[in-house]
Amino acid sequence: MQDSHAWSGRFSEPVSELVKTYTASVNFDKRLAEFDIQGSLAHAQMLAEAGVLSADDLTAIQTGMAEILADIREGRFAWSVDLEDVHMNVERRLTDKIGDAGKRLHTGRSRNDQVATDIRLWLRATIDTVVAHLVELQTSLVDLADAHADTVMPGFTHLQVAQPVTFGHHMLAYVEMLARDAERMQDVRKRVNRLPLGSAALAGTTFPINRLRTAELLGFDDVCQNSLDAVSDRDFAIEFTAAASLVMVHLSRLSEELILWMSPRVGFIDIADRFCTGSSIMPQKKNPDVPELVRGKSGRVVGHLMGLITLMKSQPLAYNKDNQEDKEPLFDTADTLIDTLRIYADMMRGITVKPEAMRAAVLQGFATATDLADYLVKKGLPFRDSHEVVALAVRYAETQGVDIADLSLDKLREFSALIDDDVFAVLTPEGSLAQRDHVGGTAPNQVRAQVARHRVRLAG
Amino acid sequence: MQDSHAWSGRFSEPVSELVKTYTASVNFDKRLAEFDIQGSLAHAQMLAEAGVLSADDLTAIQTGMAEILADIREGRFAWSVDLEDVHMNVERRLTDKIGDAGKRLHTGRSRNDQVATDIRLWLRATIDTVVAHLVELQTSLVDLADAHADTVMPGFTHLQVAQPVTFGHHMLAYVEMLARDAERMQDVRKRVNRLPLGSAALAGTTFPINRLRTAELLGFDDVCQNSLDAVSDRDFAIEFTAAASLVMVHLSRLSEELILWMSPRVGFIDIADRFCTGSSIMPQKKNPDVPELVRGKSGRVVGHLMGLITLMKSQPLAYNKDNQEDKEPLFDTADTLIDTLRIYADMMRGITVKPEAMRAAVLQGFATATDLADYLVKKGLPFRDSHEVVALAVRYAETQGVDIADLSLDKLREFSALIDDDVFAVLTPEGSLAQRDHVGGTAPNQVRAQVARHRVRLAG
Amino acid sequence: MQDSHAWSGRFSEPVSELVKTYTASVNFDKRLAEFDIQGSLAHAQMLAEAGVLSADDLTAIQTGMAEILADIREGRFAWSVDLEDVHMNVERRLTDKIGDAGKRLHTGRSRNDQVATDIRLWLRATIDTVVAHLVELQTSLVDLADAHADTVMPGFTHLQVAQPVTFGHHMLAYVEMLARDAERMQDVRKRVNRLPLGSAALAGTTFPINRLRTAELLGFDDVCQNSLDAVSDRDFAIEFTAAASLVMVHLSRLSEELILWMSPRVGFIDIADRFCTGSSIMPQKKNPDVPELVRGKSGRVVGHLMGLITLMKSQPLAYNKDNQEDKEPLFDTADTLIDTLRIYADMMRGITVKPEAMRAAVLQGFATATDLADYLVKKGLPFRDSHEVVALAVRYAETQGVDIADLSLDKLREFSALIDDDVFAVLTPEGSLAQRDHVGGTAPNQVRAQVARHRVRLAG
Amino acid sequence: MQDSHAWSGRFSEPVSELVKTYTASVNFDKRLAEFDIQGSLAHAQMLAEAGVLSADDLTAIQTGMAEILADIREGRFAWSVDLEDVHMNVERRLTDKIGDAGKRLHTGRSRNDQVATDIRLWLRATIDTVVAHLVELQTSLVDLADAHADTVMPGFTHLQVAQPVTFGHHMLAYVEMLARDAERMQDVRKRVNRLPLGSAALAGTTFPINRLRTAELLGFDDVCQNSLDAVSDRDFAIEFTAAASLVMVHLSRLSEELILWMSPRVGFIDIADRFCTGSSIMPQKKNPDVPELVRGKSGRVVGHLMGLITLMKSQPLAYNKDNQEDKEPLFDTADTLIDTLRIYADMMRGITVKPEAMRAAVLQGFATATDLADYLVKKGLPFRDSHEVVALAVRYAETQGVDIADLSLDKLREFSALIDDDVFAVLTPEGSLAQRDHVGGTAPNQVRAQVARHRVRLAG
Repeated sequence: MQDSHAWSGRFSEPVSELVKTYTASVNFDKRLAEFDIQGSLAHAQMLAEAGVLSADDLTAIQTGMAEILADIREGRFAWSVDLEDVHMNVERRLTDKIGDAGKRLHTGRSRNDQVATDIRLWLRATIDTVVAHLVELQTSLVDLADAHADTVMPGFTHLQVAQPVTFGHHMLAYVEMLARDAERMQDVRKRVNRLPLGSAALAGTTFPINRLRTAELLGFDDVCQNSLDAVSDRDFAIEFTAAASLVMVHLSRLSEELILWMSPRVGFIDIADRFCTGSSIMPQKKNPDVPELVRGKSGRVVGHLMGLITLMKSQPLAYNKDNQEDKEPLFDTADTLIDTLRIYADMMRGITVKPEAMRAAVLQGFATATDLADYLVKKGLPFRDSHEVVALAVRYAETQGVDIADLSLDKLREFSALIDDDVFAVLTPEGSLAQRDHVGGTAPNQVRAQVARHRVRLAG
Repeated sequence: MQDSHAWSGRFSEPVSELVKTYTASVNFDKRLAEFDIQGSLAHAQMLAEAGVLSADDLTAIQTGMAEILADIREGRFAWSVDLEDVHMNVERRLTDKIGDAGKRLHTGRSRNDQVATDIRLWLRATIDTVVAHLVELQTSLVDLADAHADTVMPGFTHLQVAQPVTFGHHMLAYVEMLARDAERMQDVRKRVNRLPLGSAALAGTTFPINRLRTAELLGFDDVCQNSLDAVSDRDFAIEFTAAASLVMVHLSRLSEELILWMSPRVGFIDIADRFCTGSSIMPQKKNPDVPELVRGKSGRVVGHLMGLITLMKSQPLAYNKDNQEDKEPLFDTADTLIDTLRIYADMMRGITVKPEAMRAAVLQGFATATDLADYLVKKGLPFRDSHEVVALAVRYAETQGVDIADLSLDKLREFSALIDDDVFAVLTPEGSLAQRDHVGGTAPNQVRAQVARHRVRLAG
Repeated sequence: MQDSHAWSGRFSEPVSELVKTYTASVNFDKRLAEFDIQGSLAHAQMLAEAGVLSADDLTAIQTGMAEILADIREGRFAWSVDLEDVHMNVERRLTDKIGDAGKRLHTGRSRNDQVATDIRLWLRATIDTVVAHLVELQTSLVDLADAHADTVMPGFTHLQVAQPVTFGHHMLAYVEMLARDAERMQDVRKRVNRLPLGSAALAGTTFPINRLRTAELLGFDDVCQNSLDAVSDRDFAIEFTAAASLVMVHLSRLSEELILWMSPRVGFIDIADRFCTGSSIMPQKKNPDVPELVRGKSGRVVGHLMGLITLMKSQPLAYNKDNQEDKEPLFDTADTLIDTLRIYADMMRGITVKPEAMRAAVLQGFATATDLADYLVKKGLPFRDSHEVVALAVRYAETQGVDIADLSLDKLREFSALIDDDVFAVLTPEGSLAQRDHVGGTAPNQVRAQVARHRVRLAG
Repeated sequence: MQDSHAWSGRFSEPVSELVKTYTASVNFDKRLAEFDIQGSLAHAQMLAEAGVLSADDLTAIQTGMAEILADIREGRFAWSVDLEDVHMNVERRLTDKIGDAGKRLHTGRSRNDQVATDIRLWLRATIDTVVAHLVELQTSLVDLADAHADTVMPGFTHLQVAQPVTFGHHMLAYVEMLARDAERMQDVRKRVNRLPLGSAALAGTTFPINRLRTAELLGFDDVCQNSLDAVSDRDFAIEFTAAASLVMVHLSRLSEELILWMSPRVGFIDIADRFCTGSSIMPQKKNPDVPELVRGKSGRVVGHLMGLITLMKSQPLAYNKDNQEDKEPLFDTADTLIDTLRIYADMMRGITVKPEAMRAAVLQGFATATDLADYLVKKGLPFRDSHEVVALAVRYAETQGVDIADLSLDKLREFSALIDDDVFAVLTPEGSLAQRDHVGGTAPNQVRAQVARHRVRLAG
């Protein structure tokens, strides 16, 4: 009985069943099948152009692969754990179909450079999908910002009311974060989009291959310039997972806010019922499940980042089997990220904003104290002295249970004689907002200008 | 058309399909089904004893659950994502089978305490399995130590030859680590084995429940003493994953050594073919896949630890949906750990030790230099001076390309007149070993004593 | 010119200045000095008892060490980076003081087992301090619970109002967490409190040492049973850091709540001014800095845990220099943890609780809906049906902007004819609390019973 | 007695001593002083140009700051924990020196945007230093590669001998990794080099500031476009630490190899004595401390990455005190990274390569088996069949204890009749190397071409 492994000739006993399951990767790497075939076709064409494969062999390979691809897409392909991985499954099937031409396909390559190529092709496509979803989510937030360029809400620091901001401005903070996330993804993509194929097992091959041609056929920007490095490093996967972790951290922050804003004591927003679930015991509950899960899933992605770094740390060159463990965390990172982005873009369109609750909260927290301090500075008081004056006024108002805007002019003048009745204009939330009218400031004008800028950028 | 959710009465629109998939847990928590049923049966019996359920209801529930359990075990149970999780799937099926009695089962509990109970039951069983496999692996290492109580190998520090040790002593170092790992697992088990059920959603229930009775029925040592804590903390899961990470770190260390020892330049051991795989391109290769994968999989488990901590950090009380994300990393940690322990115990039995290669390596690295220093101390030289004398002798021998044992007595006496011809006995590997004859030392005597101690302990 | 290193005889060139700084540990390990001396004294006494050191040498060592200890305590000791670490600094000074007896101290040991002993002595003392502070913080929380056994507050799940709880019950949830943290610390202590000394470099020593005697002198429970393991594993340090991470995660959760409760829209508590800081620009701000920093510092400790695991992973036996990197994260973990516990116990005594704000929040969130459902169950409705009835009542009340307790009996009876005028008693927060009167429940009775239990336990 | 805090007017009691220490950052953030002053000077100049500050005030500020800077540089500046942080220390001193002008400096800014600016200025400079050291280390490796373009060594996969490579090729693998690391640092720099100043506390300011002018004065490429985002996100710090972690992972891999290569059983290299240390007990030891510490320190940096992510995760907008914890890990990451790069570049120049040991190892592991397989393919055998033929030949040779190159032609022809006496040319290490002559391959030709390419690139 023939053993099915590609390398069995050298071994005196077959692999144990437990080992077979423990070491096989086909259950998860079959996901790379389309990219594996794409890489094989480019490799075969290059070999044919270089005279290593005959034209007939190439045609046979192309025909066979087309059938296999169709089988896979339609769920007819029977994956075998005995054949270890996606590469040997596809190659064995090809050989069953077309005979010796199939056995010639592996000329001048190894599974080491083959799998590195497959992952890079897959990750390149994944990054493009992630970026598209980042654009969509940014658009959804820009729309909200546009609709709420004038909506007053309390800006918090330390979860204490700090100064009035607009809800639009607040949304645009996340647009900035996501825009950087998209930049980062594009930067990762540059380093992903280089061809390892032709590195063979670790040292290159003795066949007259043309790696630039293979790169061209597969749309890579360049080839990996060192075969040892090409088959063994997974820094690009770690970098992607780090970038994905940052997206998740950003969305985890927004989730924290949505959950808080939907809490009844805050009540700034409502999330559409279709993104919430109830309780099996408490009939009144409407829970913001989606943002909670997003917050939870950020741990999942961060865990994968830690796992991948731990995996890579201290491996000697070149390829070691440890690297097989790179795929599952990478796949799960991509799936989690893409699902989260999709659902988030949709959910943000289902947010109901409650401006009156936001405005009430602004009035509760001495939010315009800084405006009073600035007012005094403009009347000539040094900032530090002005800050002290206002602190005393706040302390007094707090004992009275009122806002400083509610103090009489006479009372205010007890704290500083520089105060006049033009002060009340700067003590309203709207007055406060309107004055922060510079690039990056929260004034409605600025929010609208940013919305316009983002719309151009996102369309580009 | 009836919505299938347990909590749907309050909602004005159904959950979107994307949200349903994103938030459903049944695909992974169905694994808890046996424990879910076990918990429900104990809960029902306690409710019946407390007069909350009728005897007929209890009988109906027991009958229904027995059928459901059989269906699940035989793969006939149709899980529904619409029903979100394992709890609602089982309860709905029960109600379909037995009517109103099924609807009464959820009296006095919530999914919050139910899932916490399920996880603890599952984790308790998992820990017991882990401990059994830890014992088996230790036994396999003790057997090796027994067989190699006299086998000389170089002990390394900084991967430089340091002093002779026995291979048996080296194996027992890992037995100590794994013994501590088993201790840690038992310590985790104490904190796992407390009953959350009866905490209901977060505050307890208005029904006259008897939590101590439920604990007794389910074999818990105690009940969780605070309902808010019981439904919301997952520190026990983090603690388990931390303990699992330490096991993996220990096995990762042993793997590093096996890989190194099997490298041709070292050649201390061979691993049976059935634990190795070959190369698709290099026909001569025999790769130690299993230890490499173990090293890689340590990253996986460490990643889960990081993910779970991140998940938990900063959650306000009580239950938040973030916690749903605790299950997949926990399950995967357990599976990885158990598979690794099983395969490792088996693999260690397939190790071939090559004593001659080990002995050759001992002779190559001035491994008995410390013995010479100790010899001089016993002749009256202070240790620091003796150390300096030997360092100069080593430096000289190195320039000659020989070991210090190969220097003539006259030459040795040039470094210290205290040296006599009894020195050569202490400069052999066997002489060196035999002298380290105290608790914890590498002398064959001690190794055999430790083997005996471990055999008693592991049998206990 | 004499090179100062203990091992210089073998080397042809001195260590470069950059390397000296990079590899020296004295700047941080000098902190271990008292424990280093304690270990040396016990080692010397054992050697003298075993006849390896003379009585005169022992006396000289004891006298010299007493002087050195005094110098260190009074800041007169001049640490030298040239001497690498705490061990060589102390030993060299001893030799300067007492001559050859000092050079004999290192007989039968190595820095490898010496540093492992020092760390364990230090960590044992650290754990005892941590446990004492955990007790103190628990006491501070139990006092709060005692004072607020009847104070109604909303219990949250998903940050939505779920059911009424008492503030005392809420505080006790954290007491449970911290009690488990203390258990974990005690479990770690068992594994820390074993003596590595006598393992020498890696293989034991040729001198007739009595390790059990050294263990006895130093208060260790047992000796490490394998020399290779004893000098190379740091699992106890990782386990301590994991336990410390869980304490920080728990305090990070409480911090999240304190910050939230102090936010003006919630307003459940106030933190004393002495634990808060203000803003350099916003004069009205009073920020809960301490809980925010605690939340932030949880990241610091978790980072150290990950760093230590990464450090250990894949190290071959026995000692490698990598392990020198264990100390700084361990020291910083201990410092952060102890400072945090101290400040937290103090801060919790400076909390002002605002019962009226808590009660107002309970009334805002349909917190007694579960009580209505339970009421219906007790009237004979199966729980699932009852849940559905209440969900519809809540949905109706929400459209009216009132609580269900505000609906008339007639209106309530439209949802279920089983409702009678005894319903209103169960719909008050106090009615709801009082009924959850079982072990672990939130009823004031239970809170007081738990307070009593904790007081006994903490006094023990 | 005047309280020294900038915000004290509002508070009824002073901060406790413990809190003061716990919350103060001056002990570590004083390191930012030069950048803090640089930022203040640009801010003041912009304010003066905008008419917010008078020309006299500006001159006073410039004069005062010059004196303070000189004091700091010469260690004369007395830092005060009472003044919390670097910002208040500098500002208070300025005011002591120049009076009201000093109190006006804080106009239109807050510590929130000030510290964000300081960190970015510091990190920009740090990245430039890191990149310079990355270039230096690459150069040092390229020099080694140049000198060893022809030196044969075994290429390993799975730590088994795989195929011959050149030592030069192996060194260039690390050059590729470090080149990507430098690319990543440049990508981070783009996102660091944006100005937060002008965001004030969180919402911008009411003064007519010109942020583009401040950016220009400080050499920033752009301004942060949203004030909330600018003061609260630290993604750039996380991204830097992730990039630093990858550098450390790469160096940890190289360290693993150096340690292995210096182990006596391998003996491929020697590291100059000045980078090694000895043992306090084993006189013969020469330990590769530096690479071991580098491997250990990779854990340190990875820990900081995890700490920073944990810190950031789930923070609501805008600034929270948690963020104060960003500095120490960031500083330590930079210090560790820069020290490591410096010492590494130096150490690689102190490596002695032992070509004869490398060549001997190549001959021991059937390293040219793939060459034989390729040879048969070129004679017409399909690759899979050829692979099987060679596997059988290897298995036979192994039983004879010889290399396949040592088998007679007749014996070889028993495995395949296609083999002729031209086979022996391809079975030498040099023959094997020379044939891998394509971009990325290990042929000496290719190594030299890559060396030339890198020299141009690194000079650029």
